[in-house]
Amino acid sequence: MAALGALRSCWAPARLLTGSAHHSNRLVLCQQTSIKRHFSNNKILVELDEATGVAVMKMKNPPVNSLSLDFLTEFSITLEKLEMDRGCRGLILTSASPKIFSAGLDIMEMCGKSAEHYGEFWRAVQEMWLKLYGSNMVTIAAINGSSPAGGCLMALCCDYRIMADNPKYAIGLNETQLGIVAPFWFKDTMSNVVGNRVTEQALQLGQMFPAPEALKFGLVDQLVPEEKVQSTAASVMAQWLTVPDHARQITKSMMRKQTTDKLVNNREADIKNFVSFITRDSIQKSLQVYMERLRQRKQ
Amino acid sequence: MAALGALRSCWAPARLLTGSAHHSNRLVLCQQTSIKRHFSNNKILVELDEATGVAVMKMKNPPVNSLSLDFLTEFSITLEKLEMDRGCRGLILTSASPKIFSAGLDIMEMCGKSAEHYGEFWRAVQEMWLKLYGSNMVTIAAINGSSPAGGCLMALCCDYRIMADNPKYAIGLNETQLGIVAPFWFKDTMSNVVGNRVTEQALQLGQMFPAPEALKFGLVDQLVPEEKVQSTAASVMAQWLTVPDHARQITKSMMRKQTTDKLVNNREADIKNFVSFITRDSIQKSLQVYMERLRQRKQ
Amino acid sequence: MAALGALRSCWAPARLLTGSAHHSNRLVLCQQTSIKRHFSNNKILVELDEATGVAVMKMKNPPVNSLSLDFLTEFSITLEKLEMDRGCRGLILTSASPKIFSAGLDIMEMCGKSAEHYGEFWRAVQEMWLKLYGSNMVTIAAINGSSPAGGCLMALCCDYRIMADNPKYAIGLNETQLGIVAPFWFKDTMSNVVGNRVTEQALQLGQMFPAPEALKFGLVDQLVPEEKVQSTAASVMAQWLTVPDHARQITKSMMRKQTTDKLVNNREADIKNFVSFITRDSIQKSLQVYMERLRQRKQ
Repeated sequence: MAALGALRSCWAPARLLTGSAHHSNRLVLCQQTSIKRHFSNNKILVELDEATGVAVMKMKNPPVNSLSLDFLTEFSITLEKLEMDRGCRGLILTSASPKIFSAGLDIMEMCGKSAEHYGEFWRAVQEMWLKLYGSNMVTIAAINGSSPAGGCLMALCCDYRIMADNPKYAIGLNETQLGIVAPFWFKDTMSNVVGNRVTEQALQLGQMFPAPEALKFGLVDQLVPEEKVQSTAASVMAQWLTVPDHARQITKSMMRKQTTDKLVNNREADIKNFVSFITRDSIQKSLQVYMERLRQRKQ
Repeated sequence: MAALGALRSCWAPARLLTGSAHHSNRLVLCQQTSIKRHFSNNKILVELDEATGVAVMKMKNPPVNSLSLDFLTEFSITLEKLEMDRGCRGLILTSASPKIFSAGLDIMEMCGKSAEHYGEFWRAVQEMWLKLYGSNMVTIAAINGSSPAGGCLMALCCDYRIMADNPKYAIGLNETQLGIVAPFWFKDTMSNVVGNRVTEQALQLGQMFPAPEALKFGLVDQLVPEEKVQSTAASVMAQWLTVPDHARQITKSMMRKQTTDKLVNNREADIKNFVSFITRDSIQKSLQVYMERLRQRKQ
Repeated sequence: MAALGALRSCWAPARLLTGSAHHSNRLVLCQQTSIKRHFSNNKILVELDEATGVAVMKMKNPPVNSLSLDFLTEFSITLEKLEMDRGCRGLILTSASPKIFSAGLDIMEMCGKSAEHYGEFWRAVQEMWLKLYGSNMVTIAAINGSSPAGGCLMALCCDYRIMADNPKYAIGLNETQLGIVAPFWFKDTMSNVVGNRVTEQALQLGQMFPAPEALKFGLVDQLVPEEKVQSTAASVMAQWLTVPDHARQITKSMMRKQTTDKLVNNREADIKNFVSFITRDSIQKSLQVYMERLRQRKQ
């Protein structure tokens, strides 16, 4: 909690600085005197421990860490920055909002906008996935809340998943429940983790799995009490970092390259496919119904 | 049981009508006054509940629901009919014969016939698989008895498998035990469900798994008492049908298209391969030995 | 133990004969009067039971059955000999050294030698894998000790794995721990057995699994008390041999051909890749550090 407090107090002024010309990369550095470097921009808090080479990346896009176009752009820029930082070997991805890891793609970006906007948005989703799934760093998801759809995808992109042991938190690719469809690379990412049969049923049904269920078939690797998610992530990370980087990186790339290549070689077709799907009247209508329901729930 | 009785009494007169000119599709409709439409032809009973959109398809080819050329032809025609029926969203596949789901491919069709016949038979097996595995409907297997070889294949083609909780009932692709070989698309279908390792061992050994064993590694999804197989299938189906059809169908196709395409692109070669295998003297001899053993067992 | 004694007393004179001109295949036959034929060469003991058609192949390259160039060459020649022997239908692979199945690739062959030597060595590793993974025989690993890296690969190549139930014995592809990398065909072999997720984590971390752990996720199929490893292998083999050879062989080839073809079609590139990796200064240095540590441990 102390660490989180420090992060927050760092984040506030940093935010004020964002947007100034010489911070074109949108990352702001503070507390350089300490061994921990704290970055932040609008929606992502980063704390890089130079002693361990581990960065903690906290998603902070209240209330539910929706993956908006802005958020995704910041996410990819931040990730690339860390990727190129030789002092950073491991990444812990977590949420700054209690109870929710990420609610997934922002429906506002898929509703009532232009085809051009949908295309730009989808490219940003692809970019996030390519960068996170293809990262050379050790990546650990510290899943401290529910994680539907795109939130689940982010967790699945990591090398290891630790989830808060709370049956109220659920995780899954539930796109079909909204009348939309997880694309082939979401499917491949899940199938690489839990195999074909579980993926086929889960995607068709749009299933959300309470944490204990998710553990049973390997959708997450470990459950720990909520207050130990971060510390467990740190100690698992320490273990992973005992392996020589070059050997681990070649191995990781060997495991994942075929999957990422499938999208790299079909990016434009995949965007076109998304745009043509999401602009259908029937899809737009069902998303509007869904949003209306969400709005009413809030009131 | 009442429903089954109704079906049977429907089936009898329907059978008499089959073959009349204006029933060229070989399906006969009866009891149109009720909300349930009952079809039947020689070997397949269909009850379509228009209120739920669920068809129950009962295989009735006594004594063991062998997949003969006639049976397979009727099966594919019936399935296509339901596939094109907008009122039909889900299919429950089950057996009208107690204790046996289906004994698989009819050995009589593979023994002592012409190469041309073998080719025609194999094309019908392919057709059944392509239609069932590629179905847009939700498909649930209500496995109310043993299910070797082609019977197991049919079950594996469905989206979900419910089996009678009776250790006397077994399921598996046991082709090698007869000296024959499950083709690559049988293998792919099984491997998509239980993974590569279980498939490799099971296919090499021609293993039959008692229901409780089959559940353990996911060859079936659920065991229920024998008398609850049908009602469980109905309630699981109801759950699947809560998902919007278009999203579920695109997802299912994404999961399965690569597997079906492999056969679609190699159908003639696969037929040629089967004919050249089955016409070998050694294979014919071992099938005859097997049939002789079956005949003696019956006496 | 009696059998082992017989084997050893056979092996000693046989060894003296090795190298004589008319034994160019490097296999020496003795005790032809018995129903069991005993072969042996420098590093591999073979006992072929003509009554059952089962050969037991004992690796004997003390102290840890390192896979040296010589050993691999003898291994492949012996395997080919058995493969072509119509009287041999099954192979049990085990170790003549207590506590160790095989320590894997001989680091001496990868350190301080010429690029040409590395190429020759790697070709021999490929050859061993192609022959063992692609064998038409039923192959069972009787894992009577620890089995890291290349030792684990050999076990994974078999159709079935029985391991001594001793938590001190561990098995795994731990290459990254040494700063080197398991190539794609090691990865494919493991992934075909335990699936993608376990493989990805295990290879990245270079994990060694104690026997009970290995059983849990199917890296081995069965644990038995140490003294029963050989007898269990024999009785499991008897079961596998009840399946008609031709059907089992076609099935096995169908399951594995895609995996072996990937290497067959990329052998030279894979060798080139290995040589360019292993000749890096940094890799040579880290292997030397590792060997130095091993040397100090022995003193």
